[in-house]
Amino acid sequence: MDKLEQIKATLQKFADDRDWDQFHSPKNLSMALSVEASELVECFQWLTEAQSQNLSPEQRQAVIDEMADVQIYLLRLATKLDVNLLEAAEQKIVKNAEKYPADKVKGSSKKYTEYQQDDHAVDKKA
Amino acid sequence: MDKLEQIKATLQKFADDRDWDQFHSPKNLSMALSVEASELVECFQWLTEAQSQNLSPEQRQAVIDEMADVQIYLLRLATKLDVNLLEAAEQKIVKNAEKYPADKVKGSSKKYTEYQQDDHAVDKKA
Amino acid sequence: MDKLEQIKATLQKFADDRDWDQFHSPKNLSMALSVEASELVECFQWLTEAQSQNLSPEQRQAVIDEMADVQIYLLRLATKLDVNLLEAAEQKIVKNAEKYPADKVKGSSKKYTEYQQDDHAVDKKA
Amino acid sequence: MDKLEQIKATLQKFADDRDWDQFHSPKNLSMALSVEASELVECFQWLTEAQSQNLSPEQRQAVIDEMADVQIYLLRLATKLDVNLLEAAEQKIVKNAEKYPADKVKGSSKKYTEYQQDDHAVDKKA
Repeated sequence: MDKLEQIKATLQKFADDRDWDQFHSPKNLSMALSVEASELVECFQWLTEAQSQNLSPEQRQAVIDEMADVQIYLLRLATKLDVNLLEAAEQKIVKNAEKYPADKVKGSSKKYTEYQQDDHAVDKKA
Repeated sequence: MDKLEQIKATLQKFADDRDWDQFHSPKNLSMALSVEASELVECFQWLTEAQSQNLSPEQRQAVIDEMADVQIYLLRLATKLDVNLLEAAEQKIVKNAEKYPADKVKGSSKKYTEYQQDDHAVDKKA
Repeated sequence: MDKLEQIKATLQKFADDRDWDQFHSPKNLSMALSVEASELVECFQWLTEAQSQNLSPEQRQAVIDEMADVQIYLLRLATKLDVNLLEAAEQKIVKNAEKYPADKVKGSSKKYTEYQQDDHAVDKKA
Repeated sequence: MDKLEQIKATLQKFADDRDWDQFHSPKNLSMALSVEASELVECFQWLTEAQSQNLSPEQRQAVIDEMADVQIYLLRLATKLDVNLLEAAEQKIVKNAEKYPADKVKGSSKKYTEYQQDDHAVDKKA
């Protein structure tokens, strides 16, 4: 069993030991995941971009803890929905590459709906 | 190189090909990650908990895509801050187990600050 | 001066007294607002929908405090960008009514891109 | 009836006309509000702080629309929970002033738990 599967098993036992599975619907887990993502944002909200690249040891540890909590809820959701996270990431990178062709978007941070409109292209879905 | 490191390398190349590294400060990546987390929440916001456990194939694919995007930004941030995500998750599970002792919190969804207040305990940090 | 303008003035003085204006770029304020929105989500994440309609006095006060913080950052952003919030809300309701015609969406929680696809309509923007 | 109450009434009619009240539990509305808050963050995620202070007309309109949607869901939640939003904001400003005394926090963006720890003070709740 690889590391990711081991952590998923540990988290399942963690939930079972606390009788918390009853709270872990996909809906609720998505909420908890977004709350942890915001706690990560909170670490950075008053820092400049430059400061965010030069964290103090205390700031760095706080950031790592919040990243870990996001990863934990993502793994819980993957368990509950029986999703292979790494495979999903690989497939999404392919989709993202199609949405953002390197030669078209180089150096631009525009959303794909925006540069397509520049091209008079039509997009059905965001 | 394991799968996670491979994906991190692919994402670095993806950013390099588009000259997007300039936008990927930890501050900005935390924002992008939280936006993707909310797109995951959006999939579930009008569903009941029961419906969130019985997704249609289209709903399921949309959820998987958003989970993938969260994982992608988490990996980008891990690259930028040189964080070992799985190690961080394992260490955070240990911390969470201390905050939420199984015998105290069984079947309760209270936040740890709440059950500690029941105990007249004092907590210095949320 | 109406109530909303009074609160905006109080918040400007609050920031000035603390020399916090330097941190209040629109970018940073959007982050802080989203963090408060997630603290509101956190109040509800493990509750059922029915429980969310029957809050204890303590839960209710926590919810009100987080709603207040969202309103506060929205007002700060309105000050910084010189936006008339209520006028903006009224204009957005008109746009939303066009996106979601009552006769088409009655009783459905589908996103407007979805029911338009049912109609073979094309949408350029999400 | 003041402007805020008028908008709340308009939104109630909007929901009634679409038979959407069934979806508007406080739990679900908190999710929708946080999704709109993230759409606001999305407007700013790749901009510098300076750029966020100098939006193009298109960017500015997008920001105003997202601010409006946050205000709309906040008003829906206020209706559902019978909360006086402006009164809540005023009371929260008083609480925030106690948490962040001007003479202690001047020019610092530290969270109140942090500067209190500097003082060896103890805080029970974040």
